[in-house]
Amino acid sequence: MSTGFFGDIAKIKYEGPDSTNPLAFRHYNPDEIVAGKRMEDHLRFAVAYWHTFTWPGGDPFGGQTFERPWFEDSMQAAKLKADVAFEFFSLLGSPFYCFHDADVRPEGKNFAENTKNLNEIVDYFAQKQADTGVKLLWGTANLFSNRRFMSGAATNPDPDVFAFSAATVKTCMDATKKLGGANYVLWGGREGYETLLNTDLSRELNQLGRFLNLVVEYKYKIGFEGTILIEPKPQEPTKHQYDYDVATVYAFLQKNGLDKEVKVNIEQGHAILAGHSFEHELAMANAFGIFGSIDMNRNDYQSGWDTDQFPNNVPEMALAYYHVLAGGGFKNGGTNFDSKLRRQSLDPQDLLIGHIGGMDCCARGLKAAAKMIEDGALSKPLKERYSKWDSPEAQKMLRGELKLDEIAALVEREDINPEPKSGRQEYLENVVNRYV
Amino acid sequence: MSTGFFGDIAKIKYEGPDSTNPLAFRHYNPDEIVAGKRMEDHLRFAVAYWHTFTWPGGDPFGGQTFERPWFEDSMQAAKLKADVAFEFFSLLGSPFYCFHDADVRPEGKNFAENTKNLNEIVDYFAQKQADTGVKLLWGTANLFSNRRFMSGAATNPDPDVFAFSAATVKTCMDATKKLGGANYVLWGGREGYETLLNTDLSRELNQLGRFLNLVVEYKYKIGFEGTILIEPKPQEPTKHQYDYDVATVYAFLQKNGLDKEVKVNIEQGHAILAGHSFEHELAMANAFGIFGSIDMNRNDYQSGWDTDQFPNNVPEMALAYYHVLAGGGFKNGGTNFDSKLRRQSLDPQDLLIGHIGGMDCCARGLKAAAKMIEDGALSKPLKERYSKWDSPEAQKMLRGELKLDEIAALVEREDINPEPKSGRQEYLENVVNRYV
Amino acid sequence: MSTGFFGDIAKIKYEGPDSTNPLAFRHYNPDEIVAGKRMEDHLRFAVAYWHTFTWPGGDPFGGQTFERPWFEDSMQAAKLKADVAFEFFSLLGSPFYCFHDADVRPEGKNFAENTKNLNEIVDYFAQKQADTGVKLLWGTANLFSNRRFMSGAATNPDPDVFAFSAATVKTCMDATKKLGGANYVLWGGREGYETLLNTDLSRELNQLGRFLNLVVEYKYKIGFEGTILIEPKPQEPTKHQYDYDVATVYAFLQKNGLDKEVKVNIEQGHAILAGHSFEHELAMANAFGIFGSIDMNRNDYQSGWDTDQFPNNVPEMALAYYHVLAGGGFKNGGTNFDSKLRRQSLDPQDLLIGHIGGMDCCARGLKAAAKMIEDGALSKPLKERYSKWDSPEAQKMLRGELKLDEIAALVEREDINPEPKSGRQEYLENVVNRYV
Amino acid sequence: MSTGFFGDIAKIKYEGPDSTNPLAFRHYNPDEIVAGKRMEDHLRFAVAYWHTFTWPGGDPFGGQTFERPWFEDSMQAAKLKADVAFEFFSLLGSPFYCFHDADVRPEGKNFAENTKNLNEIVDYFAQKQADTGVKLLWGTANLFSNRRFMSGAATNPDPDVFAFSAATVKTCMDATKKLGGANYVLWGGREGYETLLNTDLSRELNQLGRFLNLVVEYKYKIGFEGTILIEPKPQEPTKHQYDYDVATVYAFLQKNGLDKEVKVNIEQGHAILAGHSFEHELAMANAFGIFGSIDMNRNDYQSGWDTDQFPNNVPEMALAYYHVLAGGGFKNGGTNFDSKLRRQSLDPQDLLIGHIGGMDCCARGLKAAAKMIEDGALSKPLKERYSKWDSPEAQKMLRGELKLDEIAALVEREDINPEPKSGRQEYLENVVNRYV
Repeated sequence: MSTGFFGDIAKIKYEGPDSTNPLAFRHYNPDEIVAGKRMEDHLRFAVAYWHTFTWPGGDPFGGQTFERPWFEDSMQAAKLKADVAFEFFSLLGSPFYCFHDADVRPEGKNFAENTKNLNEIVDYFAQKQADTGVKLLWGTANLFSNRRFMSGAATNPDPDVFAFSAATVKTCMDATKKLGGANYVLWGGREGYETLLNTDLSRELNQLGRFLNLVVEYKYKIGFEGTILIEPKPQEPTKHQYDYDVATVYAFLQKNGLDKEVKVNIEQGHAILAGHSFEHELAMANAFGIFGSIDMNRNDYQSGWDTDQFPNNVPEMALAYYHVLAGGGFKNGGTNFDSKLRRQSLDPQDLLIGHIGGMDCCARGLKAAAKMIEDGALSKPLKERYSKWDSPEAQKMLRGELKLDEIAALVEREDINPEPKSGRQEYLENVVNRYV
Repeated sequence: MSTGFFGDIAKIKYEGPDSTNPLAFRHYNPDEIVAGKRMEDHLRFAVAYWHTFTWPGGDPFGGQTFERPWFEDSMQAAKLKADVAFEFFSLLGSPFYCFHDADVRPEGKNFAENTKNLNEIVDYFAQKQADTGVKLLWGTANLFSNRRFMSGAATNPDPDVFAFSAATVKTCMDATKKLGGANYVLWGGREGYETLLNTDLSRELNQLGRFLNLVVEYKYKIGFEGTILIEPKPQEPTKHQYDYDVATVYAFLQKNGLDKEVKVNIEQGHAILAGHSFEHELAMANAFGIFGSIDMNRNDYQSGWDTDQFPNNVPEMALAYYHVLAGGGFKNGGTNFDSKLRRQSLDPQDLLIGHIGGMDCCARGLKAAAKMIEDGALSKPLKERYSKWDSPEAQKMLRGELKLDEIAALVEREDINPEPKSGRQEYLENVVNRYV
Repeated sequence: MSTGFFGDIAKIKYEGPDSTNPLAFRHYNPDEIVAGKRMEDHLRFAVAYWHTFTWPGGDPFGGQTFERPWFEDSMQAAKLKADVAFEFFSLLGSPFYCFHDADVRPEGKNFAENTKNLNEIVDYFAQKQADTGVKLLWGTANLFSNRRFMSGAATNPDPDVFAFSAATVKTCMDATKKLGGANYVLWGGREGYETLLNTDLSRELNQLGRFLNLVVEYKYKIGFEGTILIEPKPQEPTKHQYDYDVATVYAFLQKNGLDKEVKVNIEQGHAILAGHSFEHELAMANAFGIFGSIDMNRNDYQSGWDTDQFPNNVPEMALAYYHVLAGGGFKNGGTNFDSKLRRQSLDPQDLLIGHIGGMDCCARGLKAAAKMIEDGALSKPLKERYSKWDSPEAQKMLRGELKLDEIAALVEREDINPEPKSGRQEYLENVVNRYV
Repeated sequence: MSTGFFGDIAKIKYEGPDSTNPLAFRHYNPDEIVAGKRMEDHLRFAVAYWHTFTWPGGDPFGGQTFERPWFEDSMQAAKLKADVAFEFFSLLGSPFYCFHDADVRPEGKNFAENTKNLNEIVDYFAQKQADTGVKLLWGTANLFSNRRFMSGAATNPDPDVFAFSAATVKTCMDATKKLGGANYVLWGGREGYETLLNTDLSRELNQLGRFLNLVVEYKYKIGFEGTILIEPKPQEPTKHQYDYDVATVYAFLQKNGLDKEVKVNIEQGHAILAGHSFEHELAMANAFGIFGSIDMNRNDYQSGWDTDQFPNNVPEMALAYYHVLAGGGFKNGGTNFDSKLRRQSLDPQDLLIGHIGGMDCCARGLKAAAKMIEDGALSKPLKERYSKWDSPEAQKMLRGELKLDEIAALVEREDINPEPKSGRQEYLENVVNRYV
């Protein structure tokens, strides 16, 4: 039974590239086989509960622009929101969704009330999931909006906040397990600092290490089979966030003995804020063996904050999915749209249109990436470029069987004086443009 | 016997804050005791051979502006340059200097000739050091200027370049040891990529790991007692440099088992390019236990490349030395001026004036930092802020003796509902301003 | 009669540089004579009503942290806020304040109610001003927070929003005149675009030109003797704001015939966001003859949004006031603290401490600047550097009395082949450091 | 007769989208009619002499990587370079080229010698043009590389440099006229400052105004019928360049009475450095009526300097040409590839491949743009969005027939209380994606 919020719109269908229907897919065709797998199973799209159903359209200079009938902090409103959300997932054909506790339940006056409220909604969601077949990609705890977290959650100078945060994560992990979530995510929005003047970095990094170990220990205790994911971001709202980028997270995981336990959820916009391309972060995660999932959006290259726009540049998406596929594709992970409407996009249909455009853009990227891989378009030249390293002598050097002075003697003896070869960047860029 | 290059200038002296003599120190007073140690021994200033004696004043849009009598690629010119350089160190009273092989010797036609040339100059330097008392803070190999390194040194797709680079580092480590250098530095200016399209990240990171292990193994073999330092930089000339920032280096060191062997040489300008403050990188290195040395300069906050200007903002220097002192001060490390004149500053005296201003600025920063530490100006409020963590219960939580569900039970049972406290940032900023 | 909000704090006094009292001035001494004028009359400090009394401490990832008894949208709360505000101005000794309509009055349901509410508060303020001697530096209209302005005020695609905005500005100009305001400011927070796809730039620039002409016409009609000021900002909340920087505003003013009528209110943080230094924007405004007033704050150089922190870097302030003084000092303008506490700075005292630190920092900057001007520390070398332009031949060329081919003939005939001279940047930087 | 430099390559042909020949066009088909005009006549491609034939592959950290037989400073080498260049234009099918004086002639020891050398080469070029049919899009003077220009050309503190620069521009305008150039460009690479401490902004802006007037006066004197173009850039090599962006140039042109005489040559990479999108700068130039020509390249969004890469993102090109076509298309202007190979792209073929990729990318962008315009894909929704402004009442307001108080009275009387409407950004973005 429809809530009526989206008017009388039918389930979004694939109509092919020539369609001009704004409420149809032109490229995303869930059952189409790409590289041996259904597109839906490749992309594993998820809708983000927060942006799509709870964000009011505010920014630092203006308040709410969206008017949604569920914008009040009550259990009744939370259920209406859930009704609309699951209707939206079904209309869109999104196989997954993601949420924070604070997105889905009314705010309680203390931990006990938060837990009670969350549990009530989890039961409601469980029934919705059963009715619609929509699944949970990941759950997470919002440890950044409430004023109690203003100076950090795990990294707070007050151990009571650490405890409150830990307790909250426990309930969110329970909820995620109950709803069959494929992953559990930690984004440390307040785990960082505003000023080093009032911050003891070493202490706070230790607190954060302990916190993450608590999470992993609890995962095993309850038999949660999903992946624990950290989502890096360099800053905003903090001046510096400890999980700055993939490399920083990897340093942290190694230090805390968790590099085999925890993976990363990489967001395009966060990569940009950190001074990287999206594909850089993906390639790094592959190199470190910690790639998990992606938060798909785009950042405005001329804005210095997280704009969380729907992706719309196909060449960028092609390179992103190239690295996803090159790393073996998603296992538990998926493509979560951590994307929000512009605050001037007031209409309910805009929610559908934003997601449709994003899904089409990802689908085009995926198809281009799969074709590049099939053709060895990039991998063949790459293999060729490094081929001299396959020689026994080079391998010996790489295995450490030659020492520095031995190598020096060799260079002198054989007068090794290498001539550079073209890196062929423009050629490879043109090759990519054949696919997009 | 003077070369005459600087005209008839006497050794730069300390004249106190009221001096208006542009060729005198107003704040740097080598023998003055600060926090129990001579200023000279605290700051351990070094002059960078490359900027000060070999940079011609070019930029991407224009060529040489400086006219120096030693600007030609011959052994004779190299010796004239050395004469002027050691004269400069003595005039300035800089206790240390730093160099790359390519700064000091003429370029040979192959490795053997490079080595021969380097060795000849090392002998010349050894005599100069003995004559003047000036010491070597660190040596390093230039593995980025010659076209053979255009696609990387250790990370080159061609193993011959890896070998050539290793051989070159061997000779530079030998030179550094012979000259009694306190450290050996690796800056991987080409160890990164221009495009991921032609780059195998995993391979290249492995190559780099092996290379660094070669260096550490050789250090022990020859009994070099200095510190091996990596200098992080995020980019430029590359689009991405593997040693991006302190955290990235730490990830790399751990992965390669070198986090107890290698430390970092942190440059202010590189910190800025990586999106960090200088004090952030210093504090991170302290937290990871890998702080080694600093390259002192400043970057223009409105320019997106490495401007390598002499430091001149005292409040920034005070915070930088605060973290240096808080970490125990320099051991083998020091303050190397990786700073260059603006290309319009043509006169020989400008070289002295740039360094004098930088040294005075550092000296003011050091004195302010030492006083803040003495007064506990920042450390007392910091300790107070985290004091609740000293309780036995909090320590138990931090040691891992409480599990996630136990913490949750505790929070529920005791209705822990923390109230936030002021972070007092403005107060602390005002406190710092009392010292600068 | 005290509201009690600040507890029992006495008026902030000047205690001199050695004071460690956090609630005293160490450098700002209102009656001290600097360059022939009282410091208070030089600096003309103003408190910003919005940050100090209405901002709840929220950011894009978290809600209110501050708890103020007046945080509700009623006339009674508005008057309590006014009571506390004027008490604050008096405690601090701030001679001025600034406000938007929306800061001071409850939001009405339409224009008529807004006007009525504003008028009631204006009467209340008038009495407060009379009682305390505090004056209005400038008033302005908030044409960006309410959702009706989401697509622009003057530049809205809907002419009704233009009309509503014009009407609102009329009431705010009336209020400003009634309260004896020295200036009236326009900051076009929504006058820009999110995407060019839905934007007709030419139309919108024309609308904005008309709007500004309406304001100037009305100024004369009512005999308002203050200055009309535009406050440039490059972006945020918009992707692009039409009043991007001083040069862009100057282009706009010329195009609309207003370059003699309107001046600029320059904010440090906005300069930084536009890719400029603060002193650049001040120098540009002086060069164009449109300098009016300043919004004083600082931006975090590592954050890509407007952080609006209290200024605390004295060397930066010295250069800023150097340009203010070099342009003749403030006339109607002043130093408005468009600065806000960090959201973790919860305590009422933090409000005082933030302003005290900012005022002290400005005072130090002013004194250094005045001394540099008195000594001709920068102006003498500057005059010398350009002195060849004073020759009759050079002046002839500059007046246009020689044409291109005549100049070419001259260069050839006299074989003019100029040798460059040192720009002495490091020397000048060291000179500045003598003063700060 | 071939120079042999490119080996035995035939003229590049259009082979259609399915071609995998790296030395063929897949989209650029010169004779294909798009929006009523041949593609060649729309795009008016030009090759930049400097990047393609004179750049040695250096960067701030490394020297020459390219080895070209003409890399020496002699007339003979200059002629060989010209032979290869015109061969390249013909192979590629580029109808135009662009040059600086310093690109094409050996450097003389003074102005007279420079002029003589330039004239000799101009004669050589004239013959080449006649032989090949290739034309000159624009000429310009290099007033930034030689050390004499280090402190500015027109804005130099030394009037002799102003004179030398003026004389040089005179010879370059003569050369451009003689070669039938369609435009003459001024890029003020050194017209800016490194530090305000040694800069008199007002003086320098006046000098620059006079200089530009000299140019325009001389244009009329010699009857040059091309367009005078200024190329904005915000910085690099300077800290601040006076021709910062389109709006800044427009301010300057108005101030100097030249806004009807001079237009802009907009470069994508410079737009990005200035904090703008390319289409922003194009739209601004259209709005001001000063659009002239484009320098086509792309900047790396993660690098803070001008990377001058060949364009390869089709969606970006589509929006760029959308604005070019929306403004009426090129008249004298064209698409100059101010793009250079990566310094690792050593092979002669890389030069062709880079340009082919860029030309194909532009061609795809042009076709998409033309189709969007034909369909009214963006213009129809745009017209609709502003349609309320077409009402007589709104027009009256816009013409200034209603004053501020009259508008206020109207708003109050009619209780105008506008409701916002969706800006439909995501919908429009999806529409664009139908075309690319």
